[in-house]
Amino acid sequence: MAEQEFNENQINEMLERAFEEATKLYKKRGFQRRVGFGKKPALINVDLANAWTRPGNPFSCENIDDQIIPGVQRLLEACRKKNHVVVHVTTCYQVTDRENPHTDMGLWHCKIPIEVVDQKKKELWAIDSRIAPVDGEQVLIKKRASGFHGTYLAGFLRAAGVDTILVTGVTATACVRETICDGIAEGFRTIAVKECIGDRIPGAVAWNLFDIDAKFGDVETVDTCVKYLKSV
Amino acid sequence: MAEQEFNENQINEMLERAFEEATKLYKKRGFQRRVGFGKKPALINVDLANAWTRPGNPFSCENIDDQIIPGVQRLLEACRKKNHVVVHVTTCYQVTDRENPHTDMGLWHCKIPIEVVDQKKKELWAIDSRIAPVDGEQVLIKKRASGFHGTYLAGFLRAAGVDTILVTGVTATACVRETICDGIAEGFRTIAVKECIGDRIPGAVAWNLFDIDAKFGDVETVDTCVKYLKSV
Amino acid sequence: MAEQEFNENQINEMLERAFEEATKLYKKRGFQRRVGFGKKPALINVDLANAWTRPGNPFSCENIDDQIIPGVQRLLEACRKKNHVVVHVTTCYQVTDRENPHTDMGLWHCKIPIEVVDQKKKELWAIDSRIAPVDGEQVLIKKRASGFHGTYLAGFLRAAGVDTILVTGVTATACVRETICDGIAEGFRTIAVKECIGDRIPGAVAWNLFDIDAKFGDVETVDTCVKYLKSV
Amino acid sequence: MAEQEFNENQINEMLERAFEEATKLYKKRGFQRRVGFGKKPALINVDLANAWTRPGNPFSCENIDDQIIPGVQRLLEACRKKNHVVVHVTTCYQVTDRENPHTDMGLWHCKIPIEVVDQKKKELWAIDSRIAPVDGEQVLIKKRASGFHGTYLAGFLRAAGVDTILVTGVTATACVRETICDGIAEGFRTIAVKECIGDRIPGAVAWNLFDIDAKFGDVETVDTCVKYLKSV
Repeated sequence: MAEQEFNENQINEMLERAFEEATKLYKKRGFQRRVGFGKKPALINVDLANAWTRPGNPFSCENIDDQIIPGVQRLLEACRKKNHVVVHVTTCYQVTDRENPHTDMGLWHCKIPIEVVDQKKKELWAIDSRIAPVDGEQVLIKKRASGFHGTYLAGFLRAAGVDTILVTGVTATACVRETICDGIAEGFRTIAVKECIGDRIPGAVAWNLFDIDAKFGDVETVDTCVKYLKSV
Repeated sequence: MAEQEFNENQINEMLERAFEEATKLYKKRGFQRRVGFGKKPALINVDLANAWTRPGNPFSCENIDDQIIPGVQRLLEACRKKNHVVVHVTTCYQVTDRENPHTDMGLWHCKIPIEVVDQKKKELWAIDSRIAPVDGEQVLIKKRASGFHGTYLAGFLRAAGVDTILVTGVTATACVRETICDGIAEGFRTIAVKECIGDRIPGAVAWNLFDIDAKFGDVETVDTCVKYLKSV
Repeated sequence: MAEQEFNENQINEMLERAFEEATKLYKKRGFQRRVGFGKKPALINVDLANAWTRPGNPFSCENIDDQIIPGVQRLLEACRKKNHVVVHVTTCYQVTDRENPHTDMGLWHCKIPIEVVDQKKKELWAIDSRIAPVDGEQVLIKKRASGFHGTYLAGFLRAAGVDTILVTGVTATACVRETICDGIAEGFRTIAVKECIGDRIPGAVAWNLFDIDAKFGDVETVDTCVKYLKSV
Repeated sequence: MAEQEFNENQINEMLERAFEEATKLYKKRGFQRRVGFGKKPALINVDLANAWTRPGNPFSCENIDDQIIPGVQRLLEACRKKNHVVVHVTTCYQVTDRENPHTDMGLWHCKIPIEVVDQKKKELWAIDSRIAPVDGEQVLIKKRASGFHGTYLAGFLRAAGVDTILVTGVTATACVRETICDGIAEGFRTIAVKECIGDRIPGAVAWNLFDIDAKFGDVETVDTCVKYLKSV
């Protein structure tokens, strides 16, 4: 296998074989069950803001224009027709000076370049205009990976009677995965919308969705999710 | 005792006698201990925003101009000289239509008139200009009573190495008390700054500070707190 | 008014007058609203364990035998007939040596004598046998005042589909009040069961229930609560 | 590549190549930074209880006897000599009947077979005797993946003055990863102890440690961690 051939497709092909092995064990042991859809959904779009969806930023991701945005547009349309809860999660900081120990970045800037998302530069953390919030939808600013951690999301959803969350966005490795893991922990039926979850490194979407589907939430297609949103 | 005489002073006098009785029991049983000041403080001002500090709002409080603001000014000055952490907590909502079940007010508007603090009306939830934040200080928007509940406050303070919080603001009955109770629960030495905590109903400051001092945090004067802030 | 006359009744009478004053202001400003009962309740009994319900402990409370226990028995009976969720909250610690800085008491022992509730002395933190848990009911050990803080309660209740919590127990000043404040913050319709909430100092039940009813949850009688529990 | 050759080594070799690609991008963009060790550590062992460390359970993991247990023994020895904080995290449930909607399993049994870890069967959730807790160390029972979620861990660590957590245990995919992601979110310098983290499916340790090291905590060897524990 030549160096130049080692691309995303190859990685995913190899991962598929690893997943087949794992699935044998998981099935035998009773993992990979279905949590299913409930009666009252909310759509949670994670970090689909310009710093992540547009090119030229350290956080820019893959498959945004051709796959994630069109998928989220379909989900939003279905939600808005039925007045389902929609939450647009984004991330920014008031103190982005890494030398200042009193920063709302906490310690996270010690691992990743979150100092770029300055609250003063709204164009960076504003939700992508192609899937922009409309009146009555929440724009929730978080400081850490999970949309639940250090935010009012769980209490808000419970007060609204929500029992199911459909999660989209970026990245599979971090904010989406954490939101999903916290979602089921907080008592919500949690669905990862397959085509609407992205990342920026090869293979990351595949391996994170595999872990999620095995243990934390069901991975479902946009088609299935749109159908469900229309039905409730 | 004539009806017209039943004023704030009388209430506080009567409460003092009740507190004396309670203190006998508490002392005998080992309550009312001192948590004390630690090594690295933060000042947490709760809801000292215009809707609470200026007249004419359902949330307007007493003793703001003559007592709370001057006290907080002294605390801020001491903090800024020593570069201590300062957090300005305020409250506002994106959806203030009470008929909309998908509101970030959650269920709280079912008890109190929080629908007045619309995020679009920034003059209402902006920090009072007399104690306004300066660059490098956090302005933290919360949705519930406690400054910790559904916010990044605990993680932020831990990352900054803070071990002690000095709490001021309004109201004693609700947001200040909840912030203090959560503060010690989260592992911080918690101090209620006596003259800098207000409310809008007679007696409420007295009985809430009594409960706080007995069980959740030390009630200390501005003088003591300023002296401490200068010393660390 | 002679010293010897200053008893619980007098305190409560005086407090009633203070509450009348406060109620005028609250009504004018739109506080003291009703959150109401929802569709799926849970009963949360807070710290009705022997250290609090039996005599001879620093934590022993008033009105247990004649009022709180009989009331909770009626609530439990109603819940069990309809298979409603019941959670028995209690408090204990693995490390009760106050000299050990690595204790699960955190800093709370710096305010109150929680070192007495040693996990090894189960008779102290076991639920009072008169209202003991039956199979299928949760016994939840907490470390701080609130039944929600640092516990799985919110996620458990959401997963069970609960939208309403009825709170009983001790004390009004601390664990009951905190559980109620967190309850509405987490998105649950929160009800304080009037006769089933106790304390150990004069007036404390009255002033805490007044604050709760004004801002955090509805105070309702056992009769009303039993009727509701039977109806859903 | 023949089916029979597709083993753990091959998967890891392929993953290494994927990680090399990813590392190029991460380095260019400023990810994979070092959070480093702080001044006051705690050791957090996650789910190193018999259901996970001994054979014959759905949760049984790989590399326990030869690698994870010996590594944790070295860490424990270093911690105990210097009186560092040690927390043994485990998982069990009071209601394990999957038909009962009022279970402390929440919705997680809808994904994985957690109904096997019944609180009544203590041998299953007791910490492995080879690394058993000693007096003064916490045994913390959690209900979800993360050791922080719905537990008193964050408040306990803050009260103890801890600023750094070293995390070991199983599984990389779930409870270890979630504990690490929450750890840095809560404001702690978070270290994943490389040889002391396990799983049960091929490749899972590698890809999860890669994600962790890139974004949430530093992956360090037992040798480095023991040296650090001895030095502070």
